[in-house]
Amino acid sequence: MQSRAARLLYFVDLAGTLLFAIEGASAGIQSELDVLGLTVLAFCTAVGGGIIRDLLIGSVPPNALRDWRYSAMAIGGAAIVFFFHPLVRQTPANLLMVLDAAGLSLFAISGAGKAMLRELPPINAILLGAITGAGGGTIRDVLLAKVPTVLWSDVYAAAALAGATVMVVLRRLGVSPVVSAIAGGLICFTLRVVSVWRHWSLPWVH
Amino acid sequence: MQSRAARLLYFVDLAGTLLFAIEGASAGIQSELDVLGLTVLAFCTAVGGGIIRDLLIGSVPPNALRDWRYSAMAIGGAAIVFFFHPLVRQTPANLLMVLDAAGLSLFAISGAGKAMLRELPPINAILLGAITGAGGGTIRDVLLAKVPTVLWSDVYAAAALAGATVMVVLRRLGVSPVVSAIAGGLICFTLRVVSVWRHWSLPWVH
Amino acid sequence: MQSRAARLLYFVDLAGTLLFAIEGASAGIQSELDVLGLTVLAFCTAVGGGIIRDLLIGSVPPNALRDWRYSAMAIGGAAIVFFFHPLVRQTPANLLMVLDAAGLSLFAISGAGKAMLRELPPINAILLGAITGAGGGTIRDVLLAKVPTVLWSDVYAAAALAGATVMVVLRRLGVSPVVSAIAGGLICFTLRVVSVWRHWSLPWVH
Repeated sequence: MQSRAARLLYFVDLAGTLLFAIEGASAGIQSELDVLGLTVLAFCTAVGGGIIRDLLIGSVPPNALRDWRYSAMAIGGAAIVFFFHPLVRQTPANLLMVLDAAGLSLFAISGAGKAMLRELPPINAILLGAITGAGGGTIRDVLLAKVPTVLWSDVYAAAALAGATVMVVLRRLGVSPVVSAIAGGLICFTLRVVSVWRHWSLPWVH
Repeated sequence: MQSRAARLLYFVDLAGTLLFAIEGASAGIQSELDVLGLTVLAFCTAVGGGIIRDLLIGSVPPNALRDWRYSAMAIGGAAIVFFFHPLVRQTPANLLMVLDAAGLSLFAISGAGKAMLRELPPINAILLGAITGAGGGTIRDVLLAKVPTVLWSDVYAAAALAGATVMVVLRRLGVSPVVSAIAGGLICFTLRVVSVWRHWSLPWVH
Repeated sequence: MQSRAARLLYFVDLAGTLLFAIEGASAGIQSELDVLGLTVLAFCTAVGGGIIRDLLIGSVPPNALRDWRYSAMAIGGAAIVFFFHPLVRQTPANLLMVLDAAGLSLFAISGAGKAMLRELPPINAILLGAITGAGGGTIRDVLLAKVPTVLWSDVYAAAALAGATVMVVLRRLGVSPVVSAIAGGLICFTLRVVSVWRHWSLPWVH
């Protein structure tokens, strides 16, 4: 039973990696990069957050380098964008956003969960969840010489933080890992989707 | 006695973290970031240098992630800037510069000291001192898509290098750790403050 | 015999580090950095790729920090550019390109080789070869707030990937380490030099 849950999680993780790779490579098209540039962006976007997390918790070589499937997903995502970019462009923005929110939720929860295994303080486990979710996109933006969207955009990393917080708090209250993870993931997903739909943004300093 | 010194150092370290966090968040205000963006900048500026150092010397999870107080300082610094930014803006620039020089000195000395514990060659211990002191500001500038001030600005990382050099050389000459650290810290602090006061800069290539 | 080969490799590695340092510092001159900025760029360009590789495979402190000669090469490269930059500027571009191709080949092969020692999957060993070769230049470009040339430029990281692929495949086929390394290095070097000579570039998305 547990092993079926673990296998499901693994497939969802790979699916999230593929999706993030497609998003990363798409960002490269707008910047007129060549095919290798697309692949580098796809790779950094897809596995960058997880690699930073693994470096920070001392889990080296990072998961994404020990398992060839993550690299394969990243390359596959870049190939999809390269060969089918007219199709990718026609994908409804809302569908991409919902899929991205799912990936964000998954990465935030799994990141915070791995940090808890290393017995980091709760506040830093939450932080590592957000880094896992939003770190790849941040590297992508840095490589494109842009101010990372996470610094000024709508509710993105904030949703990851909220979801990770819910999960960590529930775990500390004794709720089972699976239920805590699902609750945290749903909070992150809902917050992200609703915030785009309702045009929420975080307060600014004027 | 030793434990009192260690406790003092710890409080000074946290104070330096808070100060660097305030500086990092202030940089975010000028770039029109939202409240989470401020916090991310505060966090990276305050603990980024120390985290890079810990990753490079293999001390993982990094100190700043094992102890929740560092994250608390970073978040507190961002909150201070967010709620009291008119006050922060009115703080005399000279006062901020002197406080920043104190933080730089402390981080440079503690960074070089930790590198020496790992028996790195002296030249690299000095380097790690400068990275600890100036690394956070470099990450902040990269995130803001600017050429890091450390590359072209006045005597900043150079002061950290000088202070770390003095400390490492004194230690190699057999001077006690405490005296070496104080001497190195004073050199860094004095060099930084005097260089701003006298408008010193490093030579350029024309 | 083996120890003579190892010593030769070590000297070639240091020579490559010096060359990459000179290139990194030269990039700083065009951006009007001060002498410390040149040195930082030289250091990041020369040892950045190897440090990222070492962090990712869990070999800490990274090789470039354990051995003072690498820092000395980086500082030496910056000093050469600072004091003799008119000479450096007059160096024929073709000579620099050929030397750089040699450094790239060496770093790509050594990087992939070290990754194989950690029993990473072949695809990720190849990736680490490319990161070792092209990572330093990427950090340099990020610090200069430019889109890294690796993302859009001619055949550079692609040559590193090709050379690393040849080496890894030959090793898997049972060819001896030395022969595999030489074959991979020659492929990388030839591909790079010929691609510049014939103005090859990777396909773009239009």
